[in-house]
Amino acid sequence: MPVHSGRLEFDTEGDGDAIDLTAGVESVVRSAGVDAGTVTVFVPGSTAAITTMEFEPGGVHDLRAALDGLVPKQGAYEHNRLNHDTNSHAHIRAAIVGPSETIPLHEGKLQLGVWQQIVLVDFDDRPRRRTVVVAVLS
Amino acid sequence: MPVHSGRLEFDTEGDGDAIDLTAGVESVVRSAGVDAGTVTVFVPGSTAAITTMEFEPGGVHDLRAALDGLVPKQGAYEHNRLNHDTNSHAHIRAAIVGPSETIPLHEGKLQLGVWQQIVLVDFDDRPRRRTVVVAVLS
Amino acid sequence: MPVHSGRLEFDTEGDGDAIDLTAGVESVVRSAGVDAGTVTVFVPGSTAAITTMEFEPGGVHDLRAALDGLVPKQGAYEHNRLNHDTNSHAHIRAAIVGPSETIPLHEGKLQLGVWQQIVLVDFDDRPRRRTVVVAVLS
Repeated sequence: MPVHSGRLEFDTEGDGDAIDLTAGVESVVRSAGVDAGTVTVFVPGSTAAITTMEFEPGGVHDLRAALDGLVPKQGAYEHNRLNHDTNSHAHIRAAIVGPSETIPLHEGKLQLGVWQQIVLVDFDDRPRRRTVVVAVLS
Repeated sequence: MPVHSGRLEFDTEGDGDAIDLTAGVESVVRSAGVDAGTVTVFVPGSTAAITTMEFEPGGVHDLRAALDGLVPKQGAYEHNRLNHDTNSHAHIRAAIVGPSETIPLHEGKLQLGVWQQIVLVDFDDRPRRRTVVVAVLS
Repeated sequence: MPVHSGRLEFDTEGDGDAIDLTAGVESVVRSAGVDAGTVTVFVPGSTAAITTMEFEPGGVHDLRAALDGLVPKQGAYEHNRLNHDTNSHAHIRAAIVGPSETIPLHEGKLQLGVWQQIVLVDFDDRPRRRTVVVAVLS
């Protein structure tokens, strides 16, 4: 089976910064030159996540605000206490949202909805350089 | 590698309506006629999600109620304000739960637990026609 | 396409117990002897989930505590009432976190971050014997 892979690199601001990966993923799919299969998008690291959303400023703001409320930055976190760290909230959010999504391909196109983009959300509490791994199976 | 795909169509009531996809996914697997591999289930759209659960009325009620509490319908949502929309809560819930799951196949069977079904949850605030894309890789 | 699969078995304590699957998944990958592809990790059952995290005591404690707060054990749960059961919170948490993750392989290695492990989280309210299914596609 042919496996085509690609790596995308981004500088994020952290703190819930969301990056639209769709054009980058589509570029890997085009290079692969395949019609049918699946595309797995994965972020290495334990303080960032992959999901899909309508990538517009209001939605990005609301997702960030909702997670700020559900898993606050400040708290009696053992990860912070034991490791003299400050980003336990980022670890928790990333584990809940998850590091991977897999999107089917049909006639060479990602089967996304019209208003649906693939996004990286970086929950860490500082700017980060992130690599996203894309694997096209066909 | 053979890639077998299928599309399932459903009318949902929105508002957290959950649809059991298992029989439809099994039907695509049977058509594929494969023994080993994986099945990816993906929902196009940014206000619905794919997960697994014990599909019974109590569990469906509880998941809906829990998400109503965690991400309320009413709120100071920028998506709603900027786009004159009403479903920001649906976008947030869908991004957290996620649009895809991948289930291994063994001897032609989905490796689900006895009380585990594949479900579509439609968080939008109105009835929707939904397509679910199934990709069998083997 | 070659599909290599494996099954990992664990006894958990339930109640948010987290098990580091990474060494077991790596062992299945080594047996497969493949360089490029994807590895899907899936847990059968509707009260456990698969995600990734930095597997250290503080982070495990914090994830468990966060979910205890977001989806409490006690509540007016219909699943519990209708089925004379006690673990509705476990079903809700498992459905939100999700039962599968897919990790790309490159040069025979899982493309995880340095501090990122693949984990099973068992939300059920009693000790359980769990099987995790691993599928390597290449």
